[in-house]
Amino acid sequence: MRHLLDTQTLDRQTALRILDIAEDMSDTQSREVKKLPTLRGKTVVNLFFEDSTRTRISFEAAAKRLSADVINFAAKGSSVSKGESLKDTAQTLQAMGADAVVIRHSASGAPRTLATSGWISAGVVNAGDGTHEHPTQALLDAFTIRKRRFGADSRGRDLAGIRVVIVGDVLHSRVARSNVWLLTTLGAEVTLVSPPTLVPQNVSHWPVRVLYDLDAALADGPDAVMMLRIQLERMNAAYFPSEREYSRTWGLDAVRAAALPRDSIVMHPGPMNRGLEISSAAADSPRSTVLEQVTNGVSVRMAVLYLLLAGERDEERGRDL
Amino acid sequence: MRHLLDTQTLDRQTALRILDIAEDMSDTQSREVKKLPTLRGKTVVNLFFEDSTRTRISFEAAAKRLSADVINFAAKGSSVSKGESLKDTAQTLQAMGADAVVIRHSASGAPRTLATSGWISAGVVNAGDGTHEHPTQALLDAFTIRKRRFGADSRGRDLAGIRVVIVGDVLHSRVARSNVWLLTTLGAEVTLVSPPTLVPQNVSHWPVRVLYDLDAALADGPDAVMMLRIQLERMNAAYFPSEREYSRTWGLDAVRAAALPRDSIVMHPGPMNRGLEISSAAADSPRSTVLEQVTNGVSVRMAVLYLLLAGERDEERGRDL
Amino acid sequence: MRHLLDTQTLDRQTALRILDIAEDMSDTQSREVKKLPTLRGKTVVNLFFEDSTRTRISFEAAAKRLSADVINFAAKGSSVSKGESLKDTAQTLQAMGADAVVIRHSASGAPRTLATSGWISAGVVNAGDGTHEHPTQALLDAFTIRKRRFGADSRGRDLAGIRVVIVGDVLHSRVARSNVWLLTTLGAEVTLVSPPTLVPQNVSHWPVRVLYDLDAALADGPDAVMMLRIQLERMNAAYFPSEREYSRTWGLDAVRAAALPRDSIVMHPGPMNRGLEISSAAADSPRSTVLEQVTNGVSVRMAVLYLLLAGERDEERGRDL
Repeated sequence: MRHLLDTQTLDRQTALRILDIAEDMSDTQSREVKKLPTLRGKTVVNLFFEDSTRTRISFEAAAKRLSADVINFAAKGSSVSKGESLKDTAQTLQAMGADAVVIRHSASGAPRTLATSGWISAGVVNAGDGTHEHPTQALLDAFTIRKRRFGADSRGRDLAGIRVVIVGDVLHSRVARSNVWLLTTLGAEVTLVSPPTLVPQNVSHWPVRVLYDLDAALADGPDAVMMLRIQLERMNAAYFPSEREYSRTWGLDAVRAAALPRDSIVMHPGPMNRGLEISSAAADSPRSTVLEQVTNGVSVRMAVLYLLLAGERDEERGRDL
Repeated sequence: MRHLLDTQTLDRQTALRILDIAEDMSDTQSREVKKLPTLRGKTVVNLFFEDSTRTRISFEAAAKRLSADVINFAAKGSSVSKGESLKDTAQTLQAMGADAVVIRHSASGAPRTLATSGWISAGVVNAGDGTHEHPTQALLDAFTIRKRRFGADSRGRDLAGIRVVIVGDVLHSRVARSNVWLLTTLGAEVTLVSPPTLVPQNVSHWPVRVLYDLDAALADGPDAVMMLRIQLERMNAAYFPSEREYSRTWGLDAVRAAALPRDSIVMHPGPMNRGLEISSAAADSPRSTVLEQVTNGVSVRMAVLYLLLAGERDEERGRDL
Repeated sequence: MRHLLDTQTLDRQTALRILDIAEDMSDTQSREVKKLPTLRGKTVVNLFFEDSTRTRISFEAAAKRLSADVINFAAKGSSVSKGESLKDTAQTLQAMGADAVVIRHSASGAPRTLATSGWISAGVVNAGDGTHEHPTQALLDAFTIRKRRFGADSRGRDLAGIRVVIVGDVLHSRVARSNVWLLTTLGAEVTLVSPPTLVPQNVSHWPVRVLYDLDAALADGPDAVMMLRIQLERMNAAYFPSEREYSRTWGLDAVRAAALPRDSIVMHPGPMNRGLEISSAAADSPRSTVLEQVTNGVSVRMAVLYLLLAGERDEERGRDL
């Protein structure tokens, strides 16, 4: 694997390989010394054009656990704000010795441009681009669903037949998009539930079912319910109901959560707006995987960095992963 | 020791243990290679809700000298500013693998809430909370007093009979509070000198003497005079005199400093307002411990992180520290 | 070498020594594991009073490749902005164990003050001060010119007879000043080309030729053409032409670049204003060394940190570098 740009073009085999290596990484995180020497001497640059402390820290922790050097590059106040192009920024980072560039950008497609334009040879990881994709989020979500379902017996398994409901502002959500592609690639059945004004126009081409009634979707007893984060700054826009209306119609309140089958899980990418898209009762219940998702995020990102920076080398040498 | 939240509840034995381990740490800092492998694989998160470059850097240096990985989390521009609760932030950090959380917060009590609410199991270090406490500052101050008094013979000793005068805006000072509790626990006699409007209402319950006349307090020939930093943004408030008036009445000018006994030391937590609460003559004199305090701060924080992250484990194994 | 403050007082022998050690460092950067244990246990502080992500990252990468611990201190929002003096800031950093301070400051001379005032004993590296100097930039430029000219046979060689043209706003450029001193010390012949309003008043005392006609300067067939970055915020000032006028008269467009001798190189310290002082055709042509300069910057900074923090010690022991 040279880059991780999206889940839409990620094939089943590679996706499972990432998840299986993430299992190995996860095992190392319960050891007394969590650090592995694998990426010693490698340099990972976090190139963040948008603030995202959570995602940045997760990648930073993942890289450091693998003994890589991490350099944080926040675009604000940098030469980028003086008008430097993405190309020049990226080439500069590579010229300084960056082996991988983890990029968060407000423009959909920026990571792909970086990776495929021939500008740089460093590995590129999409850490969220516009409304396009956030592939490591979907990978950690898939990992979490699989782990909850199969436990220590997860390796090698896909998500065939698992039913996932994704709820919220799908229109603007890169998390939703990445999950739709990855979960269906792995065999899951995905249902989107969204206010009618927040469904993408081209959704009829997606491999999903679309509902506008949350209670109807939950009545099917899905295996996982994934609540999307509401961007509060959009709440006043024309296509958006009020907070109270949103919460009542599309929020996972205590009543709805309690009515779910015993083994159904409740997911959220964080940070949560408690009381808006998710109630505290649901967020803190045993069925909530919110914190497992965070923990698994580090393992999944370790796996991705490993595959980008050490995997191919090891494979060339014929070593088993 | 699981957390370090305050000095008010810190018992004498534990306090002395921290100071003695800090002596060991201090010895390692004069070696050619200052780095110890002790906390390799541990992750320390600096969770700062208020800017404090000095304190953050001191903890960062301490953790890195012990080979821990350090992740800096400045709350500004993060999900915290999007309204995430302290609980969710803390649980997220722990889920990413944080072994210790060093927290600076504007709300008094935030570190205790974090440590005692059952939200997380990571060790919590209070790096300053509101007007409540700043325990590592008091520990480094006690270390500095002891070291100046007893030198290489410091280990195991307390501060019995040592007289300390603390001068300034006691009302708003967490440094003053932490020092009052710790120094008296260690046997020192503490005198507070403060403008009458800047004395806490409940000071009669504190184990201290309160004076309003700096010259009277200095006439006793104290062993240590600790000048508090004036928060300039408070100088225009009703309860505050003018800068000139403050400096003349409550500042440690050259004349006052010169009149101190030969062995008395002058302390300041930094950064100093030279010419306001302390004159340059006093700050730069041989009796000033300002820079020793900074150096000792790294040793004390190494000791605290060691006790939180390695100490109990070692003790369980019956190893001597 | 105790400090690196400027190139004006850097003697030929020391300059060549830095460049030769940078060659050694450069060789290590093509290894599979780029990291050297040389500065393990040393602490390098990046003390930046001005934003400069590029320069900060380059020093950070250099220090980490040598296994030093790096602490970034951005003056904004720190005690510095509360009025702390440079002296107190520097002494605090040293008291925390800083072995080297890399300083970027808006005031010309700040690094020299820091190094020569007796305030601290840590090594000081000037990372750009006002309009004065930016010595590591000049060293990486000299390294780049030498490497392009002599390749693997570079070690020990100076720049005798090499002709360099520096073009742009010389008046405000610390890059230009550092290059003038270093390149001429190494035997190069330097020509400055600048709008008449942007030539320093004392340029008659510099060891350079001054021209006002870029085409005349390029007609000589120089070995290297170094384009200075235009500070766009100065473009509206009285002494400055319009962007279009500047570009037409002083910019390195495709026609001018194409007319250069085959082996002439085109240099730029970055970040580039493409289409203003340099055209994309010139910036991306094989004769452009823009990215080599960035790569060489890490090697040169590794060499400087090595000499400051390990070099003298090794020399005292009689070890060969």
